[in-house]
Amino acid sequence: MKYFLILLFTAFVSNAQMQKEQLDLMPWPQNINLTGSTFTLNKGFKINITGNPNPRIFIRATNFLRRLDGRTGLFFEQGFSTKINENPEAELQINCVRNGKIGLYEDESYQLSIESNKIKINATTDLGALHGLETLLQLLQNNSKTYNFPTVEITDMPRFTWRGLMIDAARHFQPVAVIKRNLDAMASMKMNVFHWHLVDDQGWRIEMKNHPKFTQLASDGEFYTQEEIKNIVKYAGDRGILVVPEIDVPGHASALLTAYPEIGSKVVDLKSNSVESKKQSAAIANYAIERRSGIFNATLDPTNPKTYQLLSEVFDEVCPLFPGDYFHIGGDENNGKEWDANPKIQEFKKKNKFDNNHDLQTYFNMQLVPMLKKYNKKLMGWEEIMTKNMSKDAIIHAWRGTNEGLSAGGALIKAAKNGYQTVLSNGYYIDLMLGVKSHYLNDPIPKNSILTPEEKARILGGEAAMWSELVTPLNIDSRIWPRTAAIAERLWSNENVTDLNSLNKRLKTISFRLEESGIMHLRNKDVILRNICNNQETKALRDFSNVCEPLKIYKRNGGGKKYFMFSPLTLFADACTADAFDAYDFDIAVNNYLENKNIENQTLVTNFFRKWIAMDADLISLSNNAPLIQPLLPLSKNLKDISEQLLLVIENKKTVNTDVLNGLLEKFNTRSPADVEVAVYASLKKLSQ
Amino acid sequence: MKYFLILLFTAFVSNAQMQKEQLDLMPWPQNINLTGSTFTLNKGFKINITGNPNPRIFIRATNFLRRLDGRTGLFFEQGFSTKINENPEAELQINCVRNGKIGLYEDESYQLSIESNKIKINATTDLGALHGLETLLQLLQNNSKTYNFPTVEITDMPRFTWRGLMIDAARHFQPVAVIKRNLDAMASMKMNVFHWHLVDDQGWRIEMKNHPKFTQLASDGEFYTQEEIKNIVKYAGDRGILVVPEIDVPGHASALLTAYPEIGSKVVDLKSNSVESKKQSAAIANYAIERRSGIFNATLDPTNPKTYQLLSEVFDEVCPLFPGDYFHIGGDENNGKEWDANPKIQEFKKKNKFDNNHDLQTYFNMQLVPMLKKYNKKLMGWEEIMTKNMSKDAIIHAWRGTNEGLSAGGALIKAAKNGYQTVLSNGYYIDLMLGVKSHYLNDPIPKNSILTPEEKARILGGEAAMWSELVTPLNIDSRIWPRTAAIAERLWSNENVTDLNSLNKRLKTISFRLEESGIMHLRNKDVILRNICNNQETKALRDFSNVCEPLKIYKRNGGGKKYFMFSPLTLFADACTADAFDAYDFDIAVNNYLENKNIENQTLVTNFFRKWIAMDADLISLSNNAPLIQPLLPLSKNLKDISEQLLLVIENKKTVNTDVLNGLLEKFNTRSPADVEVAVYASLKKLSQ
Repeated sequence: MKYFLILLFTAFVSNAQMQKEQLDLMPWPQNINLTGSTFTLNKGFKINITGNPNPRIFIRATNFLRRLDGRTGLFFEQGFSTKINENPEAELQINCVRNGKIGLYEDESYQLSIESNKIKINATTDLGALHGLETLLQLLQNNSKTYNFPTVEITDMPRFTWRGLMIDAARHFQPVAVIKRNLDAMASMKMNVFHWHLVDDQGWRIEMKNHPKFTQLASDGEFYTQEEIKNIVKYAGDRGILVVPEIDVPGHASALLTAYPEIGSKVVDLKSNSVESKKQSAAIANYAIERRSGIFNATLDPTNPKTYQLLSEVFDEVCPLFPGDYFHIGGDENNGKEWDANPKIQEFKKKNKFDNNHDLQTYFNMQLVPMLKKYNKKLMGWEEIMTKNMSKDAIIHAWRGTNEGLSAGGALIKAAKNGYQTVLSNGYYIDLMLGVKSHYLNDPIPKNSILTPEEKARILGGEAAMWSELVTPLNIDSRIWPRTAAIAERLWSNENVTDLNSLNKRLKTISFRLEESGIMHLRNKDVILRNICNNQETKALRDFSNVCEPLKIYKRNGGGKKYFMFSPLTLFADACTADAFDAYDFDIAVNNYLENKNIENQTLVTNFFRKWIAMDADLISLSNNAPLIQPLLPLSKNLKDISEQLLLVIENKKTVNTDVLNGLLEKFNTRSPADVEVAVYASLKKLSQ
Repeated sequence: MKYFLILLFTAFVSNAQMQKEQLDLMPWPQNINLTGSTFTLNKGFKINITGNPNPRIFIRATNFLRRLDGRTGLFFEQGFSTKINENPEAELQINCVRNGKIGLYEDESYQLSIESNKIKINATTDLGALHGLETLLQLLQNNSKTYNFPTVEITDMPRFTWRGLMIDAARHFQPVAVIKRNLDAMASMKMNVFHWHLVDDQGWRIEMKNHPKFTQLASDGEFYTQEEIKNIVKYAGDRGILVVPEIDVPGHASALLTAYPEIGSKVVDLKSNSVESKKQSAAIANYAIERRSGIFNATLDPTNPKTYQLLSEVFDEVCPLFPGDYFHIGGDENNGKEWDANPKIQEFKKKNKFDNNHDLQTYFNMQLVPMLKKYNKKLMGWEEIMTKNMSKDAIIHAWRGTNEGLSAGGALIKAAKNGYQTVLSNGYYIDLMLGVKSHYLNDPIPKNSILTPEEKARILGGEAAMWSELVTPLNIDSRIWPRTAAIAERLWSNENVTDLNSLNKRLKTISFRLEESGIMHLRNKDVILRNICNNQETKALRDFSNVCEPLKIYKRNGGGKKYFMFSPLTLFADACTADAFDAYDFDIAVNNYLENKNIENQTLVTNFFRKWIAMDADLISLSNNAPLIQPLLPLSKNLKDISEQLLLVIENKKTVNTDVLNGLLEKFNTRSPADVEVAVYASLKKLSQ
């Protein structure tokens, strides 16, 4: 009995002490008020839905039950949620005033109230209710035997109306299953826009019933059927997500022009042709699907009426597949080379008094506006479309920044000031393989920006951009997640939610829970490591992967020279992620040690060194039967060597030649053929000084 | 120079010593002749194809390049194989005499010749060439720096023409991605029949454009569109695989009758109806999708002309989706209860002089023959369709055995003797969760069978059966693989290839390589373990999972009482597999120790005990924050307790009370609520005596 009382007391204290900081919520809600008690889950837990929601709520409530049951193993009696008010006595009551519309500016707010015997989600629309269900799942707690929710009052709504993820399915095709699991993960992070980059130099990915040549000649057999597209749009809609398709024109057109070279701008070089082939090729140049990364010349001919005829027919077929209000026409990175070299196009510019190619591209873009308007769609494009004569109805997608020699996100501010609605992707390019911190602290409206309320209102939000030069279905999830969860928080939560320690702590749980949505970032890492290890024990390689990061900012495939689109992405760099876990923990250990050199702090640091010394020996041993480990050995040896030196310094208080230390340190700055960098350089440098 | 010579010599010796036994080929080829040298792979490796193959060869040759490049990281220059004779100088030359037809009795033989600078695959059909490419991939070897193939001459062909896998997509729906990755794995194991169980009591999984009620009312929204079906049939065909669809009738019809109750056999019980509802329900009974496992009563009415009208329309819509020559109509487990209770049906039997329900079902089955013949399809059914008046054109699918109180595979022999073509699944029911050995040693034509050559020729082969009462996309791969690879070998290789040590050794590599086909048996185990551990370190639970196996022969869900179709399959039993690795290794250690109690053998045994004692402590610690571990603790404690006792016996030479030991041992035979059994019982018993 005494034991029982103690247990009871402990439970009471631990619940009463539940603090907001203990919750692993993401994105962080606007208002949370913990009320100190708990709601205990049991197998009789049921859901009841009232009001006038869209039927998608039943699909998602059923999904909620399945996920909660999968986590807890409680064997819920309720298997499905199928209609209004089917369980009036249910513990979870959801009420939605009305059907939510998929698109911008819809009411996505919700109130979640958990009492010790009742849970209520109230929302204006079912879209808000879906968000409430995700928050509820994130609130799940447990002790050693049971699962519970803390009692709490939450009111929540998004800061920005555009919280997007772009996936480039053109460079490396991404099958339906990849898209669907990422839509599930987006929904769990309350994201609401899926921007689908469907066409680029490396492939045309949309089935065109009236123009079969697109996929026959320019897809390598990898494309989405129209039924699959409709199915994905429905799947997204059921999760509150708008799909914005992109057909990138007039540049990035190698695939398009492989199918329809007659609307390209390239001038045929007759000199190199034989007499016989001259006749055939005199009028039309050849294009081919690009197998490399980069900016290519292939560009549509804006002076050719056939160009607009074909595009009009393309939009006639593609627009009806997407019920949303937006269509992205790309418009980026037109290098103008084919235009400059084409006398006919030069003449057209002169005749129309176009000062430059920008004017010509604006002319081109403006031809597309009515084609889209026909289907009630607004034109969206990358920031290059923002020219002096461009329609103010266009949405400007800001993407360039310091990497392109421009100010970070400058186009966003300029667009807002110029009267355009705008979305930010600069700072959210997750293919750059930068750490989560850089994305998280990148606010669409920085505190120092000087904008009127009207201008601010034109900033719709932001979008993570997953360009796919170096991603396949095997590694894409580890490039998107968990970093995109941090971007989702930036776009949903209050601008003052910026604590990096909190972010990192919560991200550990969020990353784990993403597996439930089918995200494969954790499991596919093991697949890659097993392949590299040739089915030997992976522990040493895993340890090494936890201090290495893939080369950043396009250094891995500099100039598009190393990787073709068919090159292997099953390498060590593909197992590594942008935020090496052990590197993060090591840096904390180093900082603590430098602040206070007590024995505990010292041991935390030296344990890393011992681990890396042992790891190097294990890697050498593994490499005897695993050629793919060979390129890693110099990096690992260097880490071992410097670990040994620093152990001497720290434990034996020996003086080590600074030149030797610096020499070892600088070796980390040599480009490795393994395409990774050891991410403990900065921490080691601190220790070496 | 001396060093170089030594290296050369070592390489020469190691290659010269390459023995057949070192190869991890599966299924084992009919003839292998190693010739003692090697072919070294480099990035210039190319494929050239000649002859008159089906274009599928280009898809698969490209896939071959991608897989080989993914394993080796060589960055092959050739990205695609697209046309005949595009690389006449290529190192790999493939020649096919003619287009292979997808179906039975096609020539699937191939010759593979590897010389030190040239590889040739010669085959009559491209189907044989595909098999040759899979064998070549399995031959890949490496030293510490390079990859190579041993020089070899292989001639190969299958023993049986039907080497199948059935997947039940009705009880738990299996998305397109699950089917596709399993087709890839089948192809890698040279399997050629995918039997798709599409309809059962728990769901109708085929889009029916002319009868939308099927999926509207009886699929929970989970079904294949006709386009998806066609796409999968094409995908299978590109891998040399015939798709045999199954619509299970007249029993297993709960879903079908949920959509079309008017053709059911159930008599409405008017007594329980209110006066008001009587009028409506007088004629038609209600059916509902089943949420449990078992044999249910729902059965089509064979006396109702509407039954045949509807089935005819169903076949009119479904048959054209499947170009193959076979259609499976189920026909199993009709318990006859609805027929016996229906006066109209009894009268029909009397009038037609049917002695029993078998005669009535034969009448029903025979109505389907012309409906299928219209599309040039032969009727196939489970063994219950083999009645005295059944057409000899039917293919008999033998499935029952000792578990059903019958002789193992008796129906197969009976069918062959009665003039039916027949396929064996008894002994290949992988849902029983039996060890790989039982399936591997189950020969369709046992050595003691007394059959004429004509009778033997009627035995087409066999088929692994993956019933899905307890499988979801998360755990299905670990139920199918790697055990189905052993079944594939049984059906392809010589009947004398039966060495279990060789099987187990090769299966380790094969299991690992299945990941390349997208099979998730290894990676999804981690997902389940992480979920159970609540994102804590999984090592202890993984160790435990390696000595536990899910309850076998339907004990896990005895009588269908525990699991609904919506119950969680994210539990410890779902992470465990039918062949616990450590249990296998422990048994070898025990046998060696009992044979020779030297210190090495003793240590191998006692190391297991120490591991399990530490594991138990770790599991207890984990369970403090992981309720799903609680049900495992009694099992783990028992393993710890007996480990401690046996350590005393073995290391300290103490005498331990036999009753105590036996008491601990027998505890392993108590049904655990965790739905697993500790698979070291037999080994421990040997030690305890």
